[in-house]
Amino acid sequence: MIVSVIGASNANPELVDLAEQVGRELARRGVAVACDGLSGVTEAVCRGAKSEGGTTIGIQPGSDPKDANRWVDIPICTGMGYARNAIVVKTGRAVIAVGGAYGTLSEIGHALAEGTPVVGLKTWAPVREGRTDEGIIVAKTAKEAVERALAAVARRDGGWQQRLPSGNPR
Amino acid sequence: MIVSVIGASNANPELVDLAEQVGRELARRGVAVACDGLSGVTEAVCRGAKSEGGTTIGIQPGSDPKDANRWVDIPICTGMGYARNAIVVKTGRAVIAVGGAYGTLSEIGHALAEGTPVVGLKTWAPVREGRTDEGIIVAKTAKEAVERALAAVARRDGGWQQRLPSGNPR
Amino acid sequence: MIVSVIGASNANPELVDLAEQVGRELARRGVAVACDGLSGVTEAVCRGAKSEGGTTIGIQPGSDPKDANRWVDIPICTGMGYARNAIVVKTGRAVIAVGGAYGTLSEIGHALAEGTPVVGLKTWAPVREGRTDEGIIVAKTAKEAVERALAAVARRDGGWQQRLPSGNPR
Amino acid sequence: MIVSVIGASNANPELVDLAEQVGRELARRGVAVACDGLSGVTEAVCRGAKSEGGTTIGIQPGSDPKDANRWVDIPICTGMGYARNAIVVKTGRAVIAVGGAYGTLSEIGHALAEGTPVVGLKTWAPVREGRTDEGIIVAKTAKEAVERALAAVARRDGGWQQRLPSGNPR
Repeated sequence: MIVSVIGASNANPELVDLAEQVGRELARRGVAVACDGLSGVTEAVCRGAKSEGGTTIGIQPGSDPKDANRWVDIPICTGMGYARNAIVVKTGRAVIAVGGAYGTLSEIGHALAEGTPVVGLKTWAPVREGRTDEGIIVAKTAKEAVERALAAVARRDGGWQQRLPSGNPR
Repeated sequence: MIVSVIGASNANPELVDLAEQVGRELARRGVAVACDGLSGVTEAVCRGAKSEGGTTIGIQPGSDPKDANRWVDIPICTGMGYARNAIVVKTGRAVIAVGGAYGTLSEIGHALAEGTPVVGLKTWAPVREGRTDEGIIVAKTAKEAVERALAAVARRDGGWQQRLPSGNPR
Repeated sequence: MIVSVIGASNANPELVDLAEQVGRELARRGVAVACDGLSGVTEAVCRGAKSEGGTTIGIQPGSDPKDANRWVDIPICTGMGYARNAIVVKTGRAVIAVGGAYGTLSEIGHALAEGTPVVGLKTWAPVREGRTDEGIIVAKTAKEAVERALAAVARRDGGWQQRLPSGNPR
Repeated sequence: MIVSVIGASNANPELVDLAEQVGRELARRGVAVACDGLSGVTEAVCRGAKSEGGTTIGIQPGSDPKDANRWVDIPICTGMGYARNAIVVKTGRAVIAVGGAYGTLSEIGHALAEGTPVVGLKTWAPVREGRTDEGIIVAKTAKEAVERALAAVARRDGGWQQRLPSGNPR
């Protein structure tokens, strides 16, 4: 299974630490990470995932695989700039947002629009007509974020899972 | 000049009326409207713009120009689903959001990420760490929204404007 | 109606002249031109269309409307680089290729894959297993190219045409 | 390293066999395969790669990872239809075309436009002004195709290669 992790390229140490933990927790459960493969939160999540032997996918805005951070196993080159946000979000069965700037906000919007579960760690709270939208599942720790994301996927997909010849869960 | 207008495909009568007024106000100032060319807010803004002789551009998610509402002059077929949101936003010198659901939230995020002015009419207020983000310029009426959008473009572009041989402002 | 015109950004005077004539012939028939809005063949077709009062749409690879040549009325900013080729092709009811380099070849492939009529003027002839593919309608003059493109659209669409409130044919 | 393999979804047994061999040859050299992850040539190349323990990436036109053939390890969901062709091509350091229909032609055009080496096995030969374009490196066997693709990458990149912490070559 793949879960997408989103967040700002400029992240403070607290968010970097949180993202790295999210990467570790996903990898320990055999879940691959998709992200934009660049810096800040997404570099930290890749580093965390690799420290536990996970798989990391970098869906990059540009055309050069060397733009990816060094923890990316699979660099996907879209050459589409910000439009790659839609692909990052579609590729994960769930999305975990760690902090985040405006690009993260666009990804949250894409994910919620498509019915993909979104778990938030210190991220945006979209408010409309004075009320906080309840689309984002709020978590306090990396472990809770990963557990709630996987639980949401299981609820949505009815526990669907497929094992490949290689033994990798999709 | 082109201004993009975004909002939900399911809109109540108040938002439909507001969107139609936005279309009229833009057309009266010689500004073309870009949107997704479909229903709800974007149909209303096209109808308003045409009632004042404006130009309407529908940047559609699908591949069939007949999907556009009947007020669209220029149907652009992206065949890219939600990824067209990035194109809708990039095509306008400013963005006016009228109400809106999650797709609108993704477009607001894209626009703010690129430094495109966003004016909001009864739309999302993104909150982070307990504070409402001040990226969105809040307006109360259609006229105010259009005026504030054009003023923001003028500030950003230093009044840049180009006239084409056909006399259409770009 | 919109017809897309494709071709290389570096074009010799013969191709530039041919492209300009294509633009004129389309505009005389009330057909709008879609292209990438840049230089070479696509600048020439826009210039030709404007000289006859036509409408020109530039579906650009970048994010800045000022990248468009001066004959573009409607600059669409995709920010998607080469992936905009798919949008250029989808937006026209038919495609006319004038000369062309590798980017044009990709657009011809996209159009043929989607069943969009392609008319060629001194352009690629794709050969497979020693036989020239017959997907491209070959024309010798700009007038013939435009007439054959419109005839192909009429055959495919059963003469479908819609008139908008503004009187612009879609 | 990643090499992209393209070809038609309807392929005769000869092409299917050839594609499967290409997958095997790539996997034996530790090269991952990127493709659209669907049927015909791309299913065969994935099956071949997995039979030798390789890694397979399916850059899909749709939004559902279950659309991928069963030999895909990493399903990337673009939701962009034909526009994913540009991403398939950008993601590989080289492209191997096995047979192919019009979609393959568009991918060949994209790759050549970006200077990505293209090796052809019984695929298109684009002709312009009566001369066959020499952009495509023609191969006769799967082994020759893979060897020529890797040699072209080495020539272009000056032997650049990066090893990741996981030991996977990028």
